[in-house]
Amino acid sequence: MSRSNPGEIGRSITAAGSDFLQLSTADVPAGGLSTWLADQLRGAIADGRLPVGTRLPPTRVLAGELQVSRGVVTEAYQRLTEDGHTKARGRAGTTVVAAPFTTNTSVSSVTVPPLVVEEPGVDVFDLLRAAPARIDLTPGVPDLTAFPRAAWLKAERAVLDRLSASSFGYGDPAGTPELRLAVARWLARYRGVQVDPSEVIIVAGVAQALSLITQLLHADGIDTLAVEDPGSLGSRQHLESLGLRTPPIPVDADGVRVDELHSSGARAVLLTPAHQFPTGVVLDGERRRELIQWATETGGLIVEDDYDAEHRYDRPPVPALRAMLADHVIYAGSVSKLLAPALRIGWMVPPPAYRDRLIAAKRLADLGNAALPQLVLAHLMDSGDLERQLRYARRRHRRRRDTMIDAISNHLPTATVHGAAAGLHLTITFPDGALDDVNLATRALAEGVKTHPLSWHTQTEHPPGLVLGYAARTPTALTEAVEILGSLVAGS
Amino acid sequence: MSRSNPGEIGRSITAAGSDFLQLSTADVPAGGLSTWLADQLRGAIADGRLPVGTRLPPTRVLAGELQVSRGVVTEAYQRLTEDGHTKARGRAGTTVVAAPFTTNTSVSSVTVPPLVVEEPGVDVFDLLRAAPARIDLTPGVPDLTAFPRAAWLKAERAVLDRLSASSFGYGDPAGTPELRLAVARWLARYRGVQVDPSEVIIVAGVAQALSLITQLLHADGIDTLAVEDPGSLGSRQHLESLGLRTPPIPVDADGVRVDELHSSGARAVLLTPAHQFPTGVVLDGERRRELIQWATETGGLIVEDDYDAEHRYDRPPVPALRAMLADHVIYAGSVSKLLAPALRIGWMVPPPAYRDRLIAAKRLADLGNAALPQLVLAHLMDSGDLERQLRYARRRHRRRRDTMIDAISNHLPTATVHGAAAGLHLTITFPDGALDDVNLATRALAEGVKTHPLSWHTQTEHPPGLVLGYAARTPTALTEAVEILGSLVAGS
Repeated sequence: MSRSNPGEIGRSITAAGSDFLQLSTADVPAGGLSTWLADQLRGAIADGRLPVGTRLPPTRVLAGELQVSRGVVTEAYQRLTEDGHTKARGRAGTTVVAAPFTTNTSVSSVTVPPLVVEEPGVDVFDLLRAAPARIDLTPGVPDLTAFPRAAWLKAERAVLDRLSASSFGYGDPAGTPELRLAVARWLARYRGVQVDPSEVIIVAGVAQALSLITQLLHADGIDTLAVEDPGSLGSRQHLESLGLRTPPIPVDADGVRVDELHSSGARAVLLTPAHQFPTGVVLDGERRRELIQWATETGGLIVEDDYDAEHRYDRPPVPALRAMLADHVIYAGSVSKLLAPALRIGWMVPPPAYRDRLIAAKRLADLGNAALPQLVLAHLMDSGDLERQLRYARRRHRRRRDTMIDAISNHLPTATVHGAAAGLHLTITFPDGALDDVNLATRALAEGVKTHPLSWHTQTEHPPGLVLGYAARTPTALTEAVEILGSLVAGS
Repeated sequence: MSRSNPGEIGRSITAAGSDFLQLSTADVPAGGLSTWLADQLRGAIADGRLPVGTRLPPTRVLAGELQVSRGVVTEAYQRLTEDGHTKARGRAGTTVVAAPFTTNTSVSSVTVPPLVVEEPGVDVFDLLRAAPARIDLTPGVPDLTAFPRAAWLKAERAVLDRLSASSFGYGDPAGTPELRLAVARWLARYRGVQVDPSEVIIVAGVAQALSLITQLLHADGIDTLAVEDPGSLGSRQHLESLGLRTPPIPVDADGVRVDELHSSGARAVLLTPAHQFPTGVVLDGERRRELIQWATETGGLIVEDDYDAEHRYDRPPVPALRAMLADHVIYAGSVSKLLAPALRIGWMVPPPAYRDRLIAAKRLADLGNAALPQLVLAHLMDSGDLERQLRYARRRHRRRRDTMIDAISNHLPTATVHGAAAGLHLTITFPDGALDDVNLATRALAEGVKTHPLSWHTQTEHPPGLVLGYAARTPTALTEAVEILGSLVAGS
C-alpha cells in the first residue's frame, strides 16, 4: 500500500491529509485538543465519512495540517484505538477497524428513544437497528456469525470461472435459469411444492414480493389485504404504506380464523401458515381445508409468506399451502432466514394467471435481481452447501432456543412461551393487565436489551408480551438478557 | 462429485434419473427414439430445466428408466455433444455446457420476430435479447468480456475477511456507508459533483431510480415527465408503464431545446446532458444556462440520467448538471456501463427536499440493495481498481469506435455518424426517405446482426437510422456487421 497521498481522492482508501474532514481548531478550548480531535474522528467514523478500512493520515501530517503538536494527534489516535475503533499498525499507520454503535449514516438522527411510541412509524425498524444495545434480541435474524463466508467465496469463484460474458449483461427479469431451477428443487425437497422453474420469479426478498403483489391488487381494484392478528408489524406497515387497508383476522391456537376471514369480506389475505408470526402457531388441517374452501368459493387470493419454515426442530416442516392450492396462492420465500437478510434474494411462485404480470412488475421495479449473487446461491443450493448450512444452523438455533426457554422459566415465571417448535424467535405473553409491554421493551432497551413489544404486532386487544429472537445470540447473552428482563418485570 | 443418485433432488447438480424430465416414450414413433430423446433434452437445456453444469443421468440409468436400449441414449447424448450443448467427460458422465440460442426460460416464446413492429411492447428488450444473432450491436452494454473477475473476487475476499456479522443483517435502505462514501468520492473526481455521502442513495440501477422518482411525482400530482426526442425507448416505455405521460422535447445539435421545454408546460424533464441518448450531443453552455433559468423560474425538476458519461474519448467529461443546480436535479448513475448491467447497482443524488421521501420509497421497494456487492464495489472504487478498469475499457472502446467509423465510411457511404466523441454506441442516420429503419433492422437481424432502429427512440418525424453499440464486440465482428448492413442498404 502506498503512503498517504494528500489531495488525491479515490485512488486509495487512505484518508487525505489536506482538508481532512474540514477540521478546524479555531473554536477548540485550550487544552482540550486531544479530546476534541478524538470526538471529531469518532463522529466521522460513526457517520461513515471514515469507513472501516480507512487509514488515518500520519500523525505528523495531520499535526502539521491542524497546526497542533504531534502529541495531540497521537493521543487522539490512541484513544480511538483503546475504544476499539482503530488499530495501530506500526509503519502502516492507524486504520479504522470498527464503527461505534451508532453507526448509521441515515439522515434522521436517533435522538428520541424509538420505543416510547405506541404507534411506530415506518422507519421504526431503521431507528431500532440504529439504537445501541448490548444484546440484540430483534426477531427475524438467523445466526449471522454462521454465514458461510468460505463456501460463498468458493461458489463465487466457481461461478466466475465459468460464467459467459453475456451473463454480465441485462438478464431475464424473472431471474437466472440456474437459480429458478435450484429454487424449484429446493421447494420440492423442503416445502412439498412441485413447480416448474419457469413458475419461479426471483425477487429482492419478501418485502419486494409484497410491493409487486400490491401493484397487481391495485390494478385489479383490490384495496384490501387482510392480515393475521397478531401479525408482523413490518409487513402491515409495508402494505399500508403502499396504500392497502389491512383489516385484522384473529389467530387462535389452530391458526388464522377462516370464519372471520369469510365474514370480513376481504378478497385477499396475507398468511404465515407454516409458523405464524409472531405466535408460532401452525395452521392445522381443518383450517387448511376451510381456507381451500374459502379460496375456491370466493376466488380469494392468499399470499403465503413462508418466512422461516425450514427452521423446524421437532419434526419435518409442514408443506406450504401453495402445494395444495396452486391457483389461489402466491408463495413467497427468501434466504433472509436461511443465510442472511443482507443478500436480498427471495422468490415468488404465483398462480399461472399472475405470473406474466408479476414478471412485468419486477421488470419495471429494477429489471431483475443482480445475476452474480443469484448464480452463487444456485451453486450453494445445488452443491448441498446450503443444506449443510441449514442443518448446522438448526442445531445451533435449537440449543439457543432451549437456553432461552430455561432462562424464561427461571427468571420470568409469570410468562407463557409460544411458538417454540420452529423458527428463530419465541413470543412470551404475560397475564392480562400485568404490565405495559411497550414500557417494558423501552426499559429493557435502556438496560441494553433490544426486543419487540408484542403490541407492535397486534391490532386488537391482546395480552402484553415480548417477541424475542434467539437465533443470533450466544447462550450466555440470552441468559443474561432474560435475567435483565426478569429483574425489570419483577421490579415493575 | 458423487454419482447420479436417482430420486434425490437438490443435493447435487446431477439430474436425477427417476422421473427425469417426466419423459415417456409411449407416443414416440418406432425407430425415432434417439431423435426424440435428443429433441427433448435440447428443449430442456434451452428452457433452463437442464442448466449449464447439469450432469445428465448415466446412459445405463436413463435407458433403464425409459425402457429403451442403452444405444438410444448414447446416440442422443452424442448428438447433443456434437451440437456443442453437452460435453462427454469419460467416467464423469455427460454434462450440459451450453444452451441453444433460444436460451430464454421466460414465459412468452419468441415466435414472432420482435422487430417487425413499429410500436414495440414493454418486453421488446427481453425478446430482442432472446433473439439469436451472431453479432450483437445492441447499444448500452460495455465490453463484458473485460469484466474484472479476478479483481472482483479479490475484493470480495477482502470484504468477507473483515465484515462484521451484523453487516449480514438488515441494513440502511439508503445503502452501506462504505459505498455511499465511495460514490461521493467518485462523483467528485469524475463528474464534478461535490456531495456528502449522506446525500447518496444506492439503488438497483437507473431503472429503479426512475421507478422511485415516478412514485414521488405521482404523490406530488405530477403526471408528466417530458423526455428528449430522440430519446431512449427503454426509459420512455418504463415511465409510461408507470403511468406517466412523456411528451417529446426536440433535441438539436446543442442538446435539448429549452424553449420547447418551456412552452410544453412540463414541470419535470428527463435529460441525458453529458452524452445525449441516442444522438450523442453534449448539452452546450448556453442551453445549460437556459435550463438553470427554466428550473429556478418554474420550480422545475430535472432528472439527470448520467448513463455513460465516464466514457469520453477526446477530453474530460463535462461536469454533471447536478453540480450547478443541486436544488433542482435528481442525479442518477450506475455501474451498468462502467462494469456490468447484471450487477444492478446504481445511485441517486436528489435535492435535499426529495431525499427522505426517496429513501422511504427505496425501503418500500426492497429494503435496500444487497450489502455484499455494495461493499465489493466500494472496495473496487477505493482501491483504484475501478479507475484502472475504466482506463483499460476506454482504450479498447476507442479502438472499436474507430474501427466502426472506418467500416461505416467504407460500407455505408450514405450514412451520417453522430455521437462519436463519447459513450458505447454510435448513431447513424440516412437521408430522409432513403429507407425504413425498422425494416432494415429486421433484415439485419435475419442476417445475424442485432441493432436498434433509430425510430424506436423517436416520437416525432426524423430521418431513418440505426443505433449501433460497438463496445462489446471485437473489431473483426464490427467490420463484418457493418459490411452486412452495407450490403442490405445497397440492395434495398
